Amino acid sequence: MSKARKGVVVWFTGLSGSGKSTLSGRIAELLRPTGLPVELLDGDIIRTNLSKGLGFSKDDRDTNIRRIGFVSRLLARNGVLVFAAAISPYEAIRAEQRQLVEADGADFCEVFMKCQLEVLIQRDVKGLYKRALAGEIENFTGISDPYEPPSRPDVIVESDSETVEIGIKRVLNVLAEKGHVPREVLEKMDI
Amino acid sequence: MSKARKGVVVWFTGLSGSGKSTLSGRIAELLRPTGLPVELLDGDIIRTNLSKGLGFSKDDRDTNIRRIGFVSRLLARNGVLVFAAAISPYEAIRAEQRQLVEADGADFCEVFMKCQLEVLIQRDVKGLYKRALAGEIENFTGISDPYEPPSRPDVIVESDSETVEIGIKRVLNVLAEKGHVPREVLEKMDI
Repeated sequence: MSKARKGVVVWFTGLSGSGKSTLSGRIAELLRPTGLPVELLDGDIIRTNLSKGLGFSKDDRDTNIRRIGFVSRLLARNGVLVFAAAISPYEAIRAEQRQLVEADGADFCEVFMKCQLEVLIQRDVKGLYKRALAGEIENFTGISDPYEPPSRPDVIVESDSETVEIGIKRVLNVLAEKGHVPREVLEKMDI
Repeated sequence: MSKARKGVVVWFTGLSGSGKSTLSGRIAELLRPTGLPVELLDGDIIRTNLSKGLGFSKDDRDTNIRRIGFVSRLLARNGVLVFAAAISPYEAIRAEQRQLVEADGADFCEVFMKCQLEVLIQRDVKGLYKRALAGEIENFTGISDPYEPPSRPDVIVESDSETVEIGIKRVLNVLAEKGHVPREVLEKMDI
């Protein structure tokens, strides 16, 4: 029996509206037709399926991230390319997840969706920043709750100034470098 | 790229003490050295990692089973042999999980750990039945909470009269029939 391929958890962290779901979703969509095993764990899917009832206190956020981490880990140690998108504001919990994933023999790739708060407030696609600034939403990351940027992310995407296509290329290049996506697959892609 | 292997969720249902964890654990242990992708989702592991805070009301039990089902499904659709052990007393929720797993293109194999309540009360390895009968534990399946036996299980293991070895063989034979475990792997096993 051949040794299974090495999996990876690609972890997208960043403020609400910074483009985590868009970028991770686009990359998963691009990779699926290649036949590589891909799973997308979006924060919203997880809140529905695993974390209903949890709120946004530090404890509840940590629990939510640990659940996403647990599922990501199980998948990655079975060779899956996992794309997890969650605000995940606390550095220590992200570091803990990296350590657990790597201890299981898989890779962890942290993608920091860097975006100026002013730009997010201005865009405000979901109208959440307006409500948070008005005090209508408690524990809103970046407004009334902390966000700890990654100190050593594997990829930085400046989503306030860069196109989605640049972000896709940057993440896929790192995945190719680490051997998770064959170079020829990238070359055939229309990006 | 070769098509990934088809995964399966082997779902062990039965009363507390009926041997779900023992049997699923032994089978996972036997299969791991073969190189097949195996994950064991024991009810206790899941309650720690995904369902802390949930109780034993019907709603909370259903939520717990749906979470185990969600994780099992993600793994099985990526070719993993998943062994899930949970009392899972309600037929409708088990049927729902089967349907969701099969809709994802994986197999579902329900293993009914059949054991007379009298035998479980007599054995009472963890002392739980004694406490439940004394009214010290609420919502205890089989005593103060219902258990709906599977109407059409894929495997029945009569754990009050059969050895663990018989159970192992019965489950592995079904997995071999469905093509999840190569026959030659079974023949080499010391069971």
